[in-house]
Amino acid sequence: MIETTFMFFNEIDISNLEKIFRINLINSCSGYKSANLIGSVSNAGIPNVAVFSSVTHLGSNPPTLGYILRPTTVPRNTYKNIKETGVFTINHIHKGIIEDAHHTSAKYPEEISEFDKTTLEEEYKGNFKAPFVKGCPVQMSMRFLEEVYISSNDVTMIVGRIQELYIDDKLLKADGFINLSEGEVMTINGLDAYALPKLEDRFTYQRPKKN
Amino acid sequence: MIETTFMFFNEIDISNLEKIFRINLINSCSGYKSANLIGSVSNAGIPNVAVFSSVTHLGSNPPTLGYILRPTTVPRNTYKNIKETGVFTINHIHKGIIEDAHHTSAKYPEEISEFDKTTLEEEYKGNFKAPFVKGCPVQMSMRFLEEVYISSNDVTMIVGRIQELYIDDKLLKADGFINLSEGEVMTINGLDAYALPKLEDRFTYQRPKKN
Repeated sequence: MIETTFMFFNEIDISNLEKIFRINLINSCSGYKSANLIGSVSNAGIPNVAVFSSVTHLGSNPPTLGYILRPTTVPRNTYKNIKETGVFTINHIHKGIIEDAHHTSAKYPEEISEFDKTTLEEEYKGNFKAPFVKGCPVQMSMRFLEEVYISSNDVTMIVGRIQELYIDDKLLKADGFINLSEGEVMTINGLDAYALPKLEDRFTYQRPKKN
Repeated sequence: MIETTFMFFNEIDISNLEKIFRINLINSCSGYKSANLIGSVSNAGIPNVAVFSSVTHLGSNPPTLGYILRPTTVPRNTYKNIKETGVFTINHIHKGIIEDAHHTSAKYPEEISEFDKTTLEEEYKGNFKAPFVKGCPVQMSMRFLEEVYISSNDVTMIVGRIQELYIDDKLLKADGFINLSEGEVMTINGLDAYALPKLEDRFTYQRPKKN
C-alpha cells in the first residue's frame, strides 16, 4: 500500500496565496457542486441565462432551493431580474451543453441575451414569464421567497420556492428518485471544471447497529 | 432524434405527493451535492462523525464554507458539538468508504461514536481538537463563525472558516485546482445515492464574444 502524502496549508498560508491560486483552491475544496443554468427576464423583456454552482436544497415541504449571490460577480443581472419579476427558472446542465453553459459566465451587458450568444435555446412554457433552457433534463420554475444576508463573507442566499417541475420521464423512478446519471447531468469541480458522474450505489434508510 | 417526454408537477401536485416520494423528488432536483463527513467532538470527549450533502462554498477570502442544519434531522449531535467546542472538520467521501459514510446517517445516541460502529478511522492532527477521517483525500479543520436562520423553511446555515487544509498532493494542480476525480471523491444524488464523477473538461475565463 502506498502512503498518501498531503499538501498542508494553514490559515496564514491560505491568506498569503497568490489570488488565482487561492480562488481555485478554495473553490475546489468544498467538494462537487451542482451545475445549473438560471433563466430570468427583465421587466423590459430581455432574457438572461447564467451558470450557477451553488444551488442547494433547503427543504422539501415547502419545496425550497437557495443559491449564493456574491457581491462582485457576474450574475447581478440574474438578481436584478429576479427582484423585478419575482420569478426565475433552474435548469440542469447536461453533457451536451457544457461549453455554452460555461460561456454564460462572461460579463455581458444587461441588454444582451446570452441566448443570442450561445446555442442555448430559450423556451417558454405555460404562463411562466421566465425562460427555461430547452433540452435540459430537469427544469424548474421558481418564485422568489427571501434573501438572507451572510455577514461573515458579505454574501447573500437567494431563496426560492419550486412552482413547477419538468423531469425527463426516463430519469424519474418509482419512489421519486431522479437518476441524474441517466440524464448525463454534470457536476462542477472548482470554478471551471465539469465532471460527468456515474451512479455507483443507492442505500436504504440507515438504523443503528445493535452492537 | 427521439423527442423527450417530460413528467410535470405543479405546486399543488408536489404538496399532494406521498411523503417519501416528495422527499426523494425534491432532494434529487437541485442537482448533484457535495459528499462530506463532518467530524466533531463533545466537551465530554466523545467524537462524532456524520454525512452531509449541503456543504457549500461561500467565499475564498476569508475562506468560508456553510452547511444547512435541518430542525428535525440526525446531525443535531454535530451541531451541539460545534456549539460546545467551536470547531469541526470536513472530510471528502471517496469511493472506498461510501457504505460506512452513509451509515453515519443512522440516529445513534450522543454517547455512541460512529467511529466505533463503522470502519471509519478517526485521526487527530496537530493541536486540532476535532477528529479528521483518516484516508480522505481532502481534509479541513474549521472554526465556527456564525449561524444564519432561513425563515422560509425553518433551517439554519452554519458558517465556518477554513483553518487548515490537507490535500492528497497528487490531486493538487499548479494553479490551485484540486482534481477531485483523481481522488475518487464522490457526489450525492438525492438522499441516498452516491455517484463517481469523471472529469470531462476545464474551461478558461470567459469573455464576451465580439458579435
